[in-house]
Parts: sequence; structure tokens; C-alpha cells
Amino acid sequence: MTATRTEDRYLTRTPDEAALVSRSEPVVWPGAVKGPLDDTTLESYDSKGFLTVDDLLTPEEVLAYRHELDRLRTGEAVREDERTIVEKRSNEVRSIFEVHRTSEMIAKLAADPCVADRARQILGSDVYVHQSRVNFMPSFTGTGFYWHSDFETWHAEDGMPSMRAVSISIALTDNFPFNGGLMLMPGAHRSFVPCTGETPDDHYKESLKEQEVGVPSRSALTALAAEHGIEQFTGPAGSALMFDSNSMHGSGSNITPFARSNIFLVFNSVENTLVEPFAAASPRPDFIASRDFTPIGGISDS
Amino acid sequence: MTATRTEDRYLTRTPDEAALVSRSEPVVWPGAVKGPLDDTTLESYDSKGFLTVDDLLTPEEVLAYRHELDRLRTGEAVREDERTIVEKRSNEVRSIFEVHRTSEMIAKLAADPCVADRARQILGSDVYVHQSRVNFMPSFTGTGFYWHSDFETWHAEDGMPSMRAVSISIALTDNFPFNGGLMLMPGAHRSFVPCTGETPDDHYKESLKEQEVGVPSRSALTALAAEHGIEQFTGPAGSALMFDSNSMHGSGSNITPFARSNIFLVFNSVENTLVEPFAAASPRPDFIASRDFTPIGGISDS
Repeated sequence: MTATRTEDRYLTRTPDEAALVSRSEPVVWPGAVKGPLDDTTLESYDSKGFLTVDDLLTPEEVLAYRHELDRLRTGEAVREDERTIVEKRSNEVRSIFEVHRTSEMIAKLAADPCVADRARQILGSDVYVHQSRVNFMPSFTGTGFYWHSDFETWHAEDGMPSMRAVSISIALTDNFPFNGGLMLMPGAHRSFVPCTGETPDDHYKESLKEQEVGVPSRSALTALAAEHGIEQFTGPAGSALMFDSNSMHGSGSNITPFARSNIFLVFNSVENTLVEPFAAASPRPDFIASRDFTPIGGISDS
Repeated sequence: MTATRTEDRYLTRTPDEAALVSRSEPVVWPGAVKGPLDDTTLESYDSKGFLTVDDLLTPEEVLAYRHELDRLRTGEAVREDERTIVEKRSNEVRSIFEVHRTSEMIAKLAADPCVADRARQILGSDVYVHQSRVNFMPSFTGTGFYWHSDFETWHAEDGMPSMRAVSISIALTDNFPFNGGLMLMPGAHRSFVPCTGETPDDHYKESLKEQEVGVPSRSALTALAAEHGIEQFTGPAGSALMFDSNSMHGSGSNITPFARSNIFLVFNSVENTLVEPFAAASPRPDFIASRDFTPIGGISDS
């Protein structure tokens, strides 16, 4: 691992706290890929690290996907499946991974030009699905997820070399400001926050419920929030949020009667495929970090 | 206790769940009391059960009160004082009670016409301070407070006969939608939600950290939220929220770097003074529920 580490621009999981690292890569990657995003939206994504899409799904589609999620959640043996994550305190199903392989509907959605072409536009290349999941945040007892950058984990534990991935969260329920929706720090995607602490073996078994290693320091979060502020993703069911792999984001609790669920897809550039983890003894399982790099959706002509 | 209970309109802490009870009392009480609130604001308060006041404090006053809170919080022996409540998990100071007796500044604020006259207008009579406290919601680890009606507790545990009290929360920090500010259900103050479970002895020692008895059922909260929706109190430091004793309210967690603090004063009508508790073996201590009914602020001419 020493050879890899010496050329690693994004050292993390170190014993001592280190300074923020300025991002080297573009946010919107140059390339001849065409798609539904206009220049203004791409410029705003470049500056904030995220964008929203109104009405990505029609109300009828929302209902159909909600039925599909119910099917997945109540399926036989779903709780025994290693791809299912249950809420730490209440034992309710919190996430189910690799749904683009277990659900034909979600596989089609991932490949739909509405979705995949937006990802290809941002990443300037063909893309593949790095991770997929459906998330359920229960009403009354939803516990949220503390601040983190996905890239920090994907780099450290999955061996993703560069910040050239984009996530899309497609809301199947209304996101209000008060039911635990995602908070993001606009502009913070240009700073990499190194995190302290060594990655434990099989860290993912705990970290998907509640992360303890790979967590930004309070001083880093305070500085980033002071510089960039915080925005929340709100909007009706059917709207979507796309955000950069290095966006700083998190969510609070949900004590309201309004549960939340969404479909979550991560696209990585085919020019950014996984290598050995940068700060973990062994890579996480395929259902969390796919090593099938087959391009999805339209393939670029170039 | 049997005699009291038979004439009790607001039975609670019962073994089985009971239906919602329609409020009998007015929200804005008739009376010749004049004050700073105009008719439109009073009508809106009547219908929603709460109102906000912009710029109750100037920025200079906010700073002065924040210094006062720091003084109170860091005072010698504050953690050993029974009037200080510490956060369950982090052991940080969460609330300090009876501050209108321990802080001259806060005593003056409670009696200020800006504050006390608004309370007298709403309650249609002279008022006294039923409870006062300062609240600190820490950044990063603030845990919030689950849904409840204050009146349910004040009636059950303090012997407050009727819904004729009003609270004012004066913000000393900015309230964003995402740092654990108060959520309220506008209009729900007209329904009393009976709660199940017998009140344990010395319940307040636990309930002020995390309430387990006197908690509305999920079905009641779901019905109220469906009918009334949810609003959040947001606004800059120096703004204030006044809300009815039977408002259904709660707050989520605060994982942001933006801590929150406020001064919280409860005014009760001098015509609604405390009797024996309606659903507890003995009344709570005076520092939580004052039995000094001396009117505060301007005294009405009538």
C-alpha cells in the first residue's frame, strides 16, 4: 500500500488531523456528451456541487416506484439479506443495496436517458453504476445521518481514485424542511476533508448504520459551514437531487409523521474505475461498491 | 383525587388511549387589557395558537442576554443545582430553570411591557410567571424534544386547571429550518390529546431530559399533522415566538455547527392559579411550576 499512498492526493484515515485539501479535479468534466442539462444548470452545479430536478418522475411513476419499494422491503428473507441495513435502535429496514440488480424497474430507471444522460453530461464520459440503494427514513424515529463526504469513504474503502462520480437521490415522498431531508454545504465540494482514525476491518457493517470513522472534525465542519452555509433539499415526491461525490452532506432526525423514502443511484465515470482501497485493508463487498464497470445507458459516440 | 378527577375535562395519564377532547376555553381571552398586539395578529394567534414577534430584542440586547446566559451557564455550582438540566448523552447543560429569580436582567425582561403586556392581552387578565428557563441546544449533538403539549404536563403534574397560559421563546441565536428549531401544528391547540401511562414519582427528573409518559400517541400525531400540517419557527436572533399552552410542538436534532439558545418564559393568568395535580401523586417543585402567583408587569385597571 505504501506505493499507492505516496501518490495519494487525498490522504485520509490518518492518526492526526490534517488540513483541508483543495480539489484538483473538475466538477463538471469537459467532454462532448450531450444531455438534458442546460448550461446555466451545469454552471450552478459546478459552483454549488449539486442541482435539483423538478418532476423527474410523474405522480403515476412515483406511485409505481413506491409499490416496488414496498415489494422490496417486505420481500421474504429481506432482513436476512446482507444487502439490507436495519435501523440501529428500532430494527426497521433503513436501506437495501444493489437494487439495480434485484429490481428490473430500478435497473431501467438507472439506464433511462433522464437519469444516465445527466450523469454522463456532468462526468464527461460514459458511466456505470457504482452503487444503488433504496432508503427508508421512518416517521417519528428517523435518526438521520451525520455530516460526511461520500468520496472520502469511496476513496478510502473502495479505491475510487478521483472525484468523478455523481449521486442522484430521487424522492418518492415529499421532502419538507422538517422531516429529515438532506442538508448540503454549497461549494464545500471543492475541499477534501481528511478524517482521522484507522478503518476497522468490515467497517461497512457498522458505518452504514452509524459512521464513526471517516467523520469530519467539528472544526472542519464549523469552518466549512461558516464559509459556505447550509442548504436543504426540499421538494415534492418525484423531484430529484444530483450531487457531487465530494459534497459535504448530512441529515437530521425525523420526528414528524411524514416518513421519507428515495431511490439512490451513484454513477462513476468509466475513466475512474476502482483500484485497491486507499485506506482500508480490503475492499468493501461488490453490493456496496460494484466492480462491474460495464457502461450503462447511452454510450457516447466519441 | 377522585373528586377532582370526576370534574376534570382533560383526563390524561390513563391506562387506555382515549379520543381527542375539544378545547372548552377561549384562546384569546376577552378582557379590556390593552397592549402591543393588533387585532390581525390576535386573530391569527386565535386560529393558529402561536404568533411571532420580529425584533423583540435589538442586536445589542441579544449580545447582552447572551453574556448573561454565559454567566448563568458557567456559574460555580450550576451543574450541582437541581434547577440545571444536563443533556442525557453529552452531559452538556441543556436548561436552567427559575432564571427570573436568579437573573435580574431576565426578571426585568419578564416584566417588560413588550413581553408581559402581550401575555396579558392574550390571557385577558393579569399574569404571573409560571415557569422560566434558558435553553441551550448544542451544535452537532442537539437531540431535540419529541412532540408534546405543555398544558398536558402542567395540568397533570402541576395542577393547572385551564388552558389559560402562554409561553414566549425569545431567540438569542438564529433559528434556521435545519438547526433544531421548534415545529408547531397550527390549529392543533384546539384539541387536547389525552396521554396514556401513569405518572411516575419525581417524573420531572427524567421528563425534562427525555419524556416517556405524557407523550401523544403516533395515531393522534398522524391525525393532527394530516389536519393541521406543521410549521417551523425560524428567524434571526432577537425574534420571538409566543404560543398557547396547548400547542402541539416538538423539535428535531441539531447536527449543524449552529448552536441555539433562548430565554423561555411562561405566563399564566392570575385567574388560573395552580391547584392539586390532576394526574400525579404530588406537585412538581416550585422552580418548575411556581406557586407564587404575584402579578408581574403592568396591573390592569379593571
